[in-house]
Amino acid sequence: MTSTLPATHADLLDKPTFAHLATVRPDGSPQTSVMWFAWDGKWARFTHTTTRQKFRNFEHEPRVSFSVADPANPYRFLEIRGVVESIEPDPDGEFYRTLGRRYGMEMTVLDADVRVIVTVRPTSFVAVDSGMTAAELLAYKATIRTAAAAGDPSASSDGVSAG
Amino acid sequence: MTSTLPATHADLLDKPTFAHLATVRPDGSPQTSVMWFAWDGKWARFTHTTTRQKFRNFEHEPRVSFSVADPANPYRFLEIRGVVESIEPDPDGEFYRTLGRRYGMEMTVLDADVRVIVTVRPTSFVAVDSGMTAAELLAYKATIRTAAAAGDPSASSDGVSAG
Repeated sequence: MTSTLPATHADLLDKPTFAHLATVRPDGSPQTSVMWFAWDGKWARFTHTTTRQKFRNFEHEPRVSFSVADPANPYRFLEIRGVVESIEPDPDGEFYRTLGRRYGMEMTVLDADVRVIVTVRPTSFVAVDSGMTAAELLAYKATIRTAAAAGDPSASSDGVSAG
Repeated sequence: MTSTLPATHADLLDKPTFAHLATVRPDGSPQTSVMWFAWDGKWARFTHTTTRQKFRNFEHEPRVSFSVADPANPYRFLEIRGVVESIEPDPDGEFYRTLGRRYGMEMTVLDADVRVIVTVRPTSFVAVDSGMTAAELLAYKATIRTAAAAGDPSASSDGVSAG
């Protein structure tokens, strides 16, 4: 876990990947949704409406987490934890349309009256390669070296997993 | 939201898609991770270890949520909310290896001493098409009909979004 975005995984935010956003419901249980997002190097922004459950979740618990995976390699992904810093109206749906274009869509805005821009300030990043964080990968490689030194022929460097 | 798995989205659990699993940390904030899972039509099962933060999260708050997206169409996805029903040892790593095979991997188990099987009982399902739930899609189509009846030439049936 790092407090800044690891350069190795910055492309996952620069590209129009899809965020799986976790919010906490008023009863304390988690909820997940697949979401568009914008990233300007500092803030993550989501388009949303005031009429849905997630909006109430944001108001109740501003801490969120979202993960983005590399479409070409799902074992390479990034978790971003952060805090909803602001929820502002998007009265003309301009942000919604701009975000749509990032994902190759020309959107018609029919719910501009309830559209909002949700801005998230990241607080930490967890970068995962081969299904493991950097710390896990180091520990795993140490295990492999130990096993190999002990003559275990099944020890391999294939650390890919998602468990 | 439904209490049973919608047939339209069952394939997303039958196929080896990747689950973005949300858990709640002891401080109440959410955490997300990309995970393998098994689905037998009733239970979702994850492989995990007792040494990581998620394990402590499960113990503190057994309610979880995970989402799986169609790799061919990220606007089609499924959220599953549920409860961790049991956490059992996987002493020989047999479940871990079986799960690896589902994802096309032959795994070497080097951490069998801490491997566990996390079984989740689903409590509700949210199926999304075109970035909208069934209820949202109905409301959206009604809006389009109203706009079209009012002669708005920008009204279209393109309801694809993820906001």
